[in-house]
Amino acid sequence: MKNNAITSKTEDFAKWYTDVVKAAKLADYTSVKGCIAIEPNGYAIWEKMQSILDKKFKELGHVNVQMPLLIPEGLLNKESELVEGFAPEVAWVTSGGSKVLDERLCIRPTSETLFCDYYASHVKSHRDLPMLYNQWCNVLRWEKETRPFLRSREFLWQEGHTIHATEEEAINETKRMMDVYVWFHHEILAIPSITGLKTEKEKFAGAEFTLTNEALMYNGVALQSGTSHYFGQKFSKAYDVKFTNKENKEEYVYQTSWGATTRMIGGLIMVHSDDYGLVLPPRIAPKQVVIIPIGNSEKVLELSKKYMEELNNANISAYIDDTLKSPGFKFAEAEVNGIPVRIEIGERDLENGTLMFVRRDTREKISVNIDNLDIVNYTSDLLETIQKDMYERAKKRRDELTFEAHSLEDFERIINSTPGFIKADWCGSEECELKLKEIKGIKSRCILENEKCLDGKCAVCGKDASKLVVWGIQY
Amino acid sequence: MKNNAITSKTEDFAKWYTDVVKAAKLADYTSVKGCIAIEPNGYAIWEKMQSILDKKFKELGHVNVQMPLLIPEGLLNKESELVEGFAPEVAWVTSGGSKVLDERLCIRPTSETLFCDYYASHVKSHRDLPMLYNQWCNVLRWEKETRPFLRSREFLWQEGHTIHATEEEAINETKRMMDVYVWFHHEILAIPSITGLKTEKEKFAGAEFTLTNEALMYNGVALQSGTSHYFGQKFSKAYDVKFTNKENKEEYVYQTSWGATTRMIGGLIMVHSDDYGLVLPPRIAPKQVVIIPIGNSEKVLELSKKYMEELNNANISAYIDDTLKSPGFKFAEAEVNGIPVRIEIGERDLENGTLMFVRRDTREKISVNIDNLDIVNYTSDLLETIQKDMYERAKKRRDELTFEAHSLEDFERIINSTPGFIKADWCGSEECELKLKEIKGIKSRCILENEKCLDGKCAVCGKDASKLVVWGIQY
Repeated sequence: MKNNAITSKTEDFAKWYTDVVKAAKLADYTSVKGCIAIEPNGYAIWEKMQSILDKKFKELGHVNVQMPLLIPEGLLNKESELVEGFAPEVAWVTSGGSKVLDERLCIRPTSETLFCDYYASHVKSHRDLPMLYNQWCNVLRWEKETRPFLRSREFLWQEGHTIHATEEEAINETKRMMDVYVWFHHEILAIPSITGLKTEKEKFAGAEFTLTNEALMYNGVALQSGTSHYFGQKFSKAYDVKFTNKENKEEYVYQTSWGATTRMIGGLIMVHSDDYGLVLPPRIAPKQVVIIPIGNSEKVLELSKKYMEELNNANISAYIDDTLKSPGFKFAEAEVNGIPVRIEIGERDLENGTLMFVRRDTREKISVNIDNLDIVNYTSDLLETIQKDMYERAKKRRDELTFEAHSLEDFERIINSTPGFIKADWCGSEECELKLKEIKGIKSRCILENEKCLDGKCAVCGKDASKLVVWGIQY
Repeated sequence: MKNNAITSKTEDFAKWYTDVVKAAKLADYTSVKGCIAIEPNGYAIWEKMQSILDKKFKELGHVNVQMPLLIPEGLLNKESELVEGFAPEVAWVTSGGSKVLDERLCIRPTSETLFCDYYASHVKSHRDLPMLYNQWCNVLRWEKETRPFLRSREFLWQEGHTIHATEEEAINETKRMMDVYVWFHHEILAIPSITGLKTEKEKFAGAEFTLTNEALMYNGVALQSGTSHYFGQKFSKAYDVKFTNKENKEEYVYQTSWGATTRMIGGLIMVHSDDYGLVLPPRIAPKQVVIIPIGNSEKVLELSKKYMEELNNANISAYIDDTLKSPGFKFAEAEVNGIPVRIEIGERDLENGTLMFVRRDTREKISVNIDNLDIVNYTSDLLETIQKDMYERAKKRRDELTFEAHSLEDFERIINSTPGFIKADWCGSEECELKLKEIKGIKSRCILENEKCLDGKCAVCGKDASKLVVWGIQY
């Protein structure tokens, strides 16, 4: 049954998106302009994202800390590129405790400055390095538009900030953390993203280079989902973060930062969901299985409970919907909330020795014989199949929406039918980048470092090109 | 070996406290006035506090959400008592994105307003109730002094905000969440706190009543550690949070809020630690056991590894210190960092068939015969013994520092020797409360609801008294 609260995805994608966010109770607008409330269903997804990423960060030797929310203007101003990049979009605190402040404080838009300030007074010798710190926190950027999870003034994220004794080690850190984001998207979120270098124009303010993870939404629009920056010694020179190296000489540290945000929840929705509501890959779903007893017979309720316990004991998150609502209402609710597997247990089915499994992703109903049913194995296999199928479907969609362009006309033709990832050779000039921007705001997503150029000629100016770039329209 | 970086606790308690915080690398001051950096060792304690409390909250049916960081001035102003209580200590954002704002926004000092605003547009019927929401976040209050964990402008906490259909249910919620804080202090933090009602003067701005959990530090100063507030319909009337009750009539919801903060880390230090550094109860210690191999013999290293794996598999958090530092240095480091149990494995000991266990709390060395040693059982029992002993020692100290006063002279005499919890009857007048405040700032900690008065006469004015109150000096 089509959910009437949800506009069709093919009819109006933007409206469909906000309808799903609202119907699945993930987030809502608030009376604080530009800021959203993340509701229980949405926050549970973020908690699961946090727990999986945090475990991985810690396995790789990172530790968590918490730096201040506020940055004094003087401290922010020490690194000129960062200031230029962020100053236009920060919020300023100008009074506290009923007094006007001598120096304004901005709410952190990102925390390179604070980590540098900390490191400057805490690192002395090469024996103190590397320092692999991360923090989970809120940040604020004064956006003009608001779209839940995709763009809001305040958002939640993790920001890793590491310092190293050598350039090589710091570059490796930049790369391995990008690998973590790619792994997370492919293996957990079932999103077949692409990855590469940002162009000079698109890289993070103050970075030597930026690696980016780019996901393609169902409508062909790109979403930047995780970036990893190499700073070299730019910040360490600006903030005087020095150490004594093995040769007993003073040297500036080599630095990285990397972050991923609640925006990934938006990506999950726009890659996988449908007109019936949220669809979640099992590995990121906070609740993986809902058991819906039909009728009140003791046999049905007992079996429901038995299955729930067996699944929970096997680390499959299952619950029984034993509310007073009608079965049909419960089915629809489980569907809109994106519970990957629904098990319907009815008295009549039991008499026939069957029960019903329903996949959320395909909405397929599978009647299963109850004799000799190993509930844990069967469910676990089904969840893995769903995970795999969702990845394959997303990959197929991404491949269908990946195009090649050899000329400006190609770009225009593609973007005017369906947008997507557009591969094209690029000479490396900002001029050509800006020319593409005039076509519906096309921007470079990333430079593919391991792929050969199409024909070695810039698709914009026709000059020699050595870089294969993926272009697209972005959120 | 006494740690030279740490001032003696008996010599200068305040200096000892900051020395321990610094030596154990828990937190440090930053160049952002009033704000601290929580370092890895400190943040790991907070993460363990979060995981234990969060699990308990969820078992009781609470779900996590995230409301905005900023509160528009107009929204804050709707509840007059709350504004009066918090307005003097908030920070104001007055410009964002290079523009001066039409309306100032304060950084949340607490989020009753934002939750009310959310609830007002999301609750309709008694079927939507209760809504049991909690959030983990940062808040900001413009404090004048800064002491790591005890007092800082920004701090981390959880704030639960719940709404209910009846007064009874909301009052029960207020009480059961206080029970959670008491359980957490007694069972996990090994802190024998006391609990009771705040007086009218000391209760939360806007609350009908406030329950508080009060811990006594080693030096006899009290620390408020967790509060739970019942609001009745005060906020729901101010913010128009209505629902249709079972009789199909509109009614305002009944509300609670309850919170606990990173301040509990300060309490842990000031109750348990010593001149050698941090001492942590095993149940809250992020790392419970350190294994220190002495020498490089393969036998020693293999046994160390075997023990570590066995302990980790039994959910005891153990690690090997296999750095290049000297054994003596490693012992001191484990000691200052408060690792509850240290296992020293040396070649010579092994030849004699023994190894050494060292308790952090008592610094007792226990030579253990290695034959038939069940490492998991032995360690697990030792950790439980330490936990129990630490609680008993803290309780003994608290009882020693709990006094009775029948007159102002009693108060003066007690407070001029050793401060502590001072039990005294109270007539209920604010005048008497203020008179006590003149004696070194003595304040009421809480009204003991389940204990009888000492003699039924107010210790200040001598008039009839029906309340037994615990008084003290506070952080």
